[in-house]
Amino acid sequence: MSESRVNLWMVGSIGIDDVETRCEKRVDLLGGSLPFATAAASFYAPVGAVGVVGSDFPEAFTERWQSFGVDLAGVQYKEGATFRWSGRYTENMIDRDTLRTELGVFESFTPELPASYREAEYILLGNIQPQLQLHVLEQACKPRFVVLDTMNLWIEIARPALLEVIGRVNLLTLNDSEARQLSGCWNILECAEKLLQMGPEYLIIKKGEHGALLFTREGEIMIAPAWPVRNLVDPTGAGDTFAGSFLGYLTQVGSITSATLRKALLHASVVASLGVEGFSTERLEGVTMAEIEQRVDALSQMSTL
Amino acid sequence: MSESRVNLWMVGSIGIDDVETRCEKRVDLLGGSLPFATAAASFYAPVGAVGVVGSDFPEAFTERWQSFGVDLAGVQYKEGATFRWSGRYTENMIDRDTLRTELGVFESFTPELPASYREAEYILLGNIQPQLQLHVLEQACKPRFVVLDTMNLWIEIARPALLEVIGRVNLLTLNDSEARQLSGCWNILECAEKLLQMGPEYLIIKKGEHGALLFTREGEIMIAPAWPVRNLVDPTGAGDTFAGSFLGYLTQVGSITSATLRKALLHASVVASLGVEGFSTERLEGVTMAEIEQRVDALSQMSTL
Repeated sequence: MSESRVNLWMVGSIGIDDVETRCEKRVDLLGGSLPFATAAASFYAPVGAVGVVGSDFPEAFTERWQSFGVDLAGVQYKEGATFRWSGRYTENMIDRDTLRTELGVFESFTPELPASYREAEYILLGNIQPQLQLHVLEQACKPRFVVLDTMNLWIEIARPALLEVIGRVNLLTLNDSEARQLSGCWNILECAEKLLQMGPEYLIIKKGEHGALLFTREGEIMIAPAWPVRNLVDPTGAGDTFAGSFLGYLTQVGSITSATLRKALLHASVVASLGVEGFSTERLEGVTMAEIEQRVDALSQMSTL
Repeated sequence: MSESRVNLWMVGSIGIDDVETRCEKRVDLLGGSLPFATAAASFYAPVGAVGVVGSDFPEAFTERWQSFGVDLAGVQYKEGATFRWSGRYTENMIDRDTLRTELGVFESFTPELPASYREAEYILLGNIQPQLQLHVLEQACKPRFVVLDTMNLWIEIARPALLEVIGRVNLLTLNDSEARQLSGCWNILECAEKLLQMGPEYLIIKKGEHGALLFTREGEIMIAPAWPVRNLVDPTGAGDTFAGSFLGYLTQVGSITSATLRKALLHASVVASLGVEGFSTERLEGVTMAEIEQRVDALSQMSTL
């Protein structure tokens, strides 16, 4: 594995997925929050990955992942089985049933930060147990902008640890149902206030095909539209792709201002929309920066009133 | 009733509503698509109303409605009972159960256009039977921009008449589930293409708290955000308020361009958001143009990326 110094790293799950949609069933796909997030970030900045895979992790997946230029120095290769997830989407292609989850080597995973990542300023704590997010964050020497993603499971079974990590990050991102679950509020503005009181300066509430909202502690609100997707193939990982490209963009520009956050939201919407046009990271593999910029301009045009 | 010449008229239902929300139950409210739509339009342009009420229609409702400056020359007063609707919102304040619908005088209603409305260029065919929409549209001498709103019921039981009226209007507006029902498509872009093939130059798909999308036959897409409402009191009539203020704005500016349509969407989002902050048209009664403009500026700012 290469060991180049990066200014951005991400931790999360790495899995082998089976996904069933209305139209198609695919097995043994590269999945998990980390491949999606890092692949999305790779369009903007060098990015390092922190996670674990088992001895069954196909060499082809490593190659595919590295083809994005992602640094895998933080990926541990352990004896045992890689994390596996399988799910089936309902007719609306939004709701899904989880058919199987097997933790495998993920069960005994303790993330360790390579020396080459320690000085990095930009960090995405992708969706894994909050205890592990905390553990790895503590190894960072000079975090400047830390983004936290999570899911309903941790809100249910690991709330104290989750609240502790929320108190240490700059930006919390979750979807609307998770925001309601964590805050105990229904109204989206009340959700936002409650969640910002937990510590972060910024909050993003993701709404899938309906876009996303960014809230600041100063009361600023930014409304990001979703790109209208014609060819929705597989929504798995869309939230991770969104978070990854969002932070990748900010790493590239190197400043957090109202203007850069707004631009980052546009890029995140666009890269997430590209991602769902294929299974796994397949569609992202062919994407060029020119294609992203073109869609960013078009989306900006659509939403300028 | 006054008989001033108007350049904008609207037809729709006029009702007496009982509404039950999470927090409150209110009975005998001024309701129906027409009061909402015309009250919303009245901020922008003189507007005439075409509809029917029964002998039980309270004088106080007429006064309340006229306080918006709406011209009621097209409202027929008939022996019998006014249309009545009662509904109960579920916990999410979006879905609702209709508890009662009594057509009353609406059952034998034939809309007639007052002479003072015949030359009007702007027309909203609000949500009533498509046969009645057609009948009254035929009395217009020089329609320039006709907007059509409808609902799931007419898609189900009066599709041929609905298709006939759709073929004669400039803009069709419906919500996302109605768009899917009428087009038979799931994907929103496919819905839009199918619906635009039915005749209108423009299509608005409303998504409630998630905003709205406007599609043109030339392939232009505009994405309108919803104003984040803190104090959601009663969503009844939000779609009518949206359509009414949208067309009111266009009547005021007197031209249909990409720029005026975009601005009209912003105004429609804002006036609809104000309307749901109270039962019936109560909240709209206190609204000033300055308040609308302020919210329009803030919403535009939130959604400029």
